[in-house]
Amino acid sequence: MADLELIRELLTPASTKILLFVLDGLGGLPVTAGGPTELEAADTPNLDRLASEGMVGLHQPVGPGITPGSGPGHIGLFGYDAIRYQIGRGVLEALGVGFDLGPNDLAARGNFCTVDATGKITDRRAGRIPTERCRQLCDELRTIELPGVELFVEPVREHRFLLVLRGEGLEEGVADSDPGHVGSPALDVRAERPAAEKAVGLVRRFVAEARERLAGHEPANMLLLRGFARLPTWPKFPEVFGLRSVAVAQYPMYRGVAKLVGMDTAETGASLDDLFTTFEQVWPHYDFAFVHVKETDKAGEDGDFERKARVIEEADRYVPRLMALKPDVIIVTGDHSTPAALRSHSWHPVPFLLWSPSCRPDPVKQFGEKWCLQGAAGLCRSEDLMPLALAHAGRLTKFGA
Amino acid sequence: MADLELIRELLTPASTKILLFVLDGLGGLPVTAGGPTELEAADTPNLDRLASEGMVGLHQPVGPGITPGSGPGHIGLFGYDAIRYQIGRGVLEALGVGFDLGPNDLAARGNFCTVDATGKITDRRAGRIPTERCRQLCDELRTIELPGVELFVEPVREHRFLLVLRGEGLEEGVADSDPGHVGSPALDVRAERPAAEKAVGLVRRFVAEARERLAGHEPANMLLLRGFARLPTWPKFPEVFGLRSVAVAQYPMYRGVAKLVGMDTAETGASLDDLFTTFEQVWPHYDFAFVHVKETDKAGEDGDFERKARVIEEADRYVPRLMALKPDVIIVTGDHSTPAALRSHSWHPVPFLLWSPSCRPDPVKQFGEKWCLQGAAGLCRSEDLMPLALAHAGRLTKFGA
Repeated sequence: MADLELIRELLTPASTKILLFVLDGLGGLPVTAGGPTELEAADTPNLDRLASEGMVGLHQPVGPGITPGSGPGHIGLFGYDAIRYQIGRGVLEALGVGFDLGPNDLAARGNFCTVDATGKITDRRAGRIPTERCRQLCDELRTIELPGVELFVEPVREHRFLLVLRGEGLEEGVADSDPGHVGSPALDVRAERPAAEKAVGLVRRFVAEARERLAGHEPANMLLLRGFARLPTWPKFPEVFGLRSVAVAQYPMYRGVAKLVGMDTAETGASLDDLFTTFEQVWPHYDFAFVHVKETDKAGEDGDFERKARVIEEADRYVPRLMALKPDVIIVTGDHSTPAALRSHSWHPVPFLLWSPSCRPDPVKQFGEKWCLQGAAGLCRSEDLMPLALAHAGRLTKFGA
Repeated sequence: MADLELIRELLTPASTKILLFVLDGLGGLPVTAGGPTELEAADTPNLDRLASEGMVGLHQPVGPGITPGSGPGHIGLFGYDAIRYQIGRGVLEALGVGFDLGPNDLAARGNFCTVDATGKITDRRAGRIPTERCRQLCDELRTIELPGVELFVEPVREHRFLLVLRGEGLEEGVADSDPGHVGSPALDVRAERPAAEKAVGLVRRFVAEARERLAGHEPANMLLLRGFARLPTWPKFPEVFGLRSVAVAQYPMYRGVAKLVGMDTAETGASLDDLFTTFEQVWPHYDFAFVHVKETDKAGEDGDFERKARVIEEADRYVPRLMALKPDVIIVTGDHSTPAALRSHSWHPVPFLLWSPSCRPDPVKQFGEKWCLQGAAGLCRSEDLMPLALAHAGRLTKFGA
């Protein structure tokens, strides 16, 4: 935490404003030898102008060769070391479905699974049952009563669900019941440290009752639990960086990660127009806004190069509306790369541009991976972007005399 | 300290020589859109030749977005992690006025201030009294007697002075008396740890006597103290890097920081000619010389783009004299950027060139920020320069078999 502490010590008051505009999974790859990436292929006159006036570079989430999930990708963009500040699986699952985790909640990720007559797991995903079936089973499990705690069982997708126990003294340290492979039974839930004993007792009781109720419900006749976690108590973004901060995002996961670090959040409709209209409404009340576009990542995961490029072009058309609000610093980037060529998140560094009047110029006139290689910001770590943004916003004083 | 220890382990004897030539605050910014920086604007045929034959890059002091003071800027150039090796404020103040701190000294930065009849601070800087008045008040305070310790009170500039207590058992951990704002009285000096109790008792006595003597001396009728610190006990530069080392600098601050890490120092006159003449005299006796030019930084802080460029041009004309002494490795750089456009130190990476016969060539033919972006040394940390210099000087052996 030395770095966050240093930043906090160097803060100096200012009325400047910072916009972090994230196109999820922005970084890409060519689909033909010698061809452009999605971003290079997209016609982005407004982003190109920002790249030309400002500076560009590439940032590396987590570390070279590491492919980040959405959680660590954003945690890095928010200035936190994604290895030090890890979000538990249970908490991530809660963020993803917009479950409002409280300080007394212990959350886990659940899978419905299939076991044979001897209790051995034959399918860890219960044949990926339809989400509707998952919903029915969650309704059933939700009627289980545990002494002294409130129980939440929320469907996620297919075989996946969220389990939350709410009550006093539910500590982390509950081991997974999921053995991670078929052929053996679900593991007995046990405590990894003494403080977790209370939670372990309740989870065991929940599993025992769930086993009875699911028996005969082929293929989802049992469940597996993993990643028991509580809301982390991390330094809060608004305090560390001295910024009244808001997240504007269409998906609960991204509002959730922002909320985890203490940002306010604003829900919005499904279209880009909804997104930017919401942004315009909240902007006057904040020093920092994180605006999140999901569709770039989705197109990448679908392997749809053209659609990803088209989403980038659509986003580009909103840039003049962003600039009309006169932010002092804008960063445009992704939380990781999602090349359509790979149909998944990847480890490739992520192109970014930082626009502010105090940028040292670089020769780059266009926004895209190959041009970012020539940029003044070089190849940096994701968590370097926030200190850079603060510096350009005149919000950091000198270190040492 | 892992890095310094590693370097020390890899040292191998050699008779090669290294010159670190620092133009303070060298890095800059354009003052017109699309225009050159100070260094790019300067006509520097000799530095360009070194850049062309050697390699160039940019180094980042402290970390991205962090603006370093002179202390951390130089500590980084000397190969030390500037966050780990922080110089206390009191010690920096002593270095700045050339006070020769000893191992039993506890130093603090002092401000004369103004308090009202109830003791509340109304001006933390006593209206920035003239330095001459500060000198008189220091003469007065110097007559205070404290049992068992020697007392030094040295004027710095305007309302600022240096306080040094010299004696046995004066440990760090004395809290500031400066509350950092007006409207409340000076804080009672207290110990942050038990070992500091002895020093706290003496400082309290000093403050009480000073309060009596300053009473009625409007506007400087009281004082504030902060940053109590002793000389740090860091690994010494000549041992870590295996170099008989000397600092040639016009200002006490820079000789002081060099002395802090164990370098010898050479005073010199005010002109560049004095500086380089002194350098030529001491060079035969050392393996490493740090030569410091201050005027680039001053011009930057004055917002004088033209003067900063002119100082760089003047320095360039001495390069043939430096080369005539046949150093094996030369580094030319700054300790940080001081763009005239910002009239202050800044966080922007600092251009550097490293000349030695073993440089891998890069395509760069000129010395300047935009060309350094294309250099073989890339964007590195300030503390990477010393290991690079040692390697090019043939002073580091292989790591591992």
